[in-house]
Amino acid sequence: MKLLRYGEPGQEKPAIIDASGTLRDLSDHVADFSGAALDPAKLAELAKLDLAGLPAVAGSPRLGPCVAGTGKFICIGLNYSDHAAETGATVPSEPIIFMKATSAIVGPNDDLVIPRGSEKTDWEVELGVVIGRKAKYVSEAEALDYVAGYCTVHDVSERAFQIERQGQWTKGKSCDTFGPTGPWLVTKEEIPDPQNLPMWLKVNGETMQNGSSKTMVYGVAYIVSYLSQFMSLQPGDIISTGTPPGVGMGMKPPRYLKAGDVVELGIEGLGTQKQSVRADD
Amino acid sequence: MKLLRYGEPGQEKPAIIDASGTLRDLSDHVADFSGAALDPAKLAELAKLDLAGLPAVAGSPRLGPCVAGTGKFICIGLNYSDHAAETGATVPSEPIIFMKATSAIVGPNDDLVIPRGSEKTDWEVELGVVIGRKAKYVSEAEALDYVAGYCTVHDVSERAFQIERQGQWTKGKSCDTFGPTGPWLVTKEEIPDPQNLPMWLKVNGETMQNGSSKTMVYGVAYIVSYLSQFMSLQPGDIISTGTPPGVGMGMKPPRYLKAGDVVELGIEGLGTQKQSVRADD
Repeated sequence: MKLLRYGEPGQEKPAIIDASGTLRDLSDHVADFSGAALDPAKLAELAKLDLAGLPAVAGSPRLGPCVAGTGKFICIGLNYSDHAAETGATVPSEPIIFMKATSAIVGPNDDLVIPRGSEKTDWEVELGVVIGRKAKYVSEAEALDYVAGYCTVHDVSERAFQIERQGQWTKGKSCDTFGPTGPWLVTKEEIPDPQNLPMWLKVNGETMQNGSSKTMVYGVAYIVSYLSQFMSLQPGDIISTGTPPGVGMGMKPPRYLKAGDVVELGIEGLGTQKQSVRADD
Repeated sequence: MKLLRYGEPGQEKPAIIDASGTLRDLSDHVADFSGAALDPAKLAELAKLDLAGLPAVAGSPRLGPCVAGTGKFICIGLNYSDHAAETGATVPSEPIIFMKATSAIVGPNDDLVIPRGSEKTDWEVELGVVIGRKAKYVSEAEALDYVAGYCTVHDVSERAFQIERQGQWTKGKSCDTFGPTGPWLVTKEEIPDPQNLPMWLKVNGETMQNGSSKTMVYGVAYIVSYLSQFMSLQPGDIISTGTPPGVGMGMKPPRYLKAGDVVELGIEGLGTQKQSVRADD
């Protein structure tokens, strides 16, 4: 299933895309894609619905982030060996964890807002993993049982805030609009192998990133298991699993986003995002 | 006002302490201490209630975290010059920001659970600042207008996870039960000077930390203003502002928590916490 949320910010309704590409409203069957509704068992009930009988959504509404009630937005750093190389870092001996603020989460096509004082706003296409039920001390073998599905995440990153403004990457990862998420929460039965997903990102039509989750250092199941040794993962938590090569910081000379740019990105099977870049008011 | 939440985890109700120390239920006047209810203007309405007319809470119920719906649990690192010295770090040239997982938040007297594999679980008493309304790009002069009040926070920290297990402190700060918060949200009119609050922490009755917010490097108003340049602060967000000297890591030899220990901590005017330490199941 390709699940999504549509409507104005804070008032999104749940929907599903049918085989013909039509959005069908799910409000009568689920309050929102958050909390207990993300349990794989609950999602399996939605899969039994006759989509043709659900109300079609009129027009082309705004899409919200594909998951609601995200308590943790956890990122894995330097998780592609070739991306680590381009940033001058070595591959970590175990996963690097950092957090993005959940207040950074926006819809997949909302404006990307460069914060005041930023000169180094950079892009990162990433595979997002959505937790479906509480996971704590789970093994790698059982880890995917706790996953609801996958989504495209844009891990927007301000490199000066991240690296030059005193330790800890959170500062450059958490600005408002720095976490476009969606368009869809794709439930896991549609993604039999999360380690074989081509992904790409373009700026003004020019391809910047062109990679695959095949080259991840630590795979999805390992990451879910690993994180669950340190903290409980809750339904709605999103794990962004790192980015392939091609970020602006790695270019010679480095290249960053500016007002007026258009960023497009996508992951095979998980849908695409498109953001207009503007300066903050 | 001293506001609090009582009841079983996930089912807490809002209450207030009257002048005689009696808990008075506020359920008829506020759904919970979260979101818009934390706006200083809304809190001012609660201040007008005749407490004697509110139902007294029977017995000695469990206390929950004093704030609900926390979207961000932001910490300031090395924010006391004497604590920086004891850990061997230099005072940072601007605030260090990191995140604790919101899933680490528990009540002030809940058990402190040492995670599997931990040998270096350490203590940190900290002044917590609770955001009352959305703050973005606010000046230091106006910063406190966005604050609902203050609380005691225990920023429990696993030093091996934090420092020895690959970059970024989040990993050692986010374990379940590593964020006891409360007992009270003390509204700001009761705390005219947040930079003059004595605070202390004891392990098994022995004083380990004995400091004051007087020696903070970056004060509360500066921190709120500073953070708001990087991300919007939302009602219910908690900022934990750093710890004074006396953590276990700084002792010679270092000393850490073990099952059976009892930790007590408090901040003048903000109430005390008491946690029994146990190993995870």
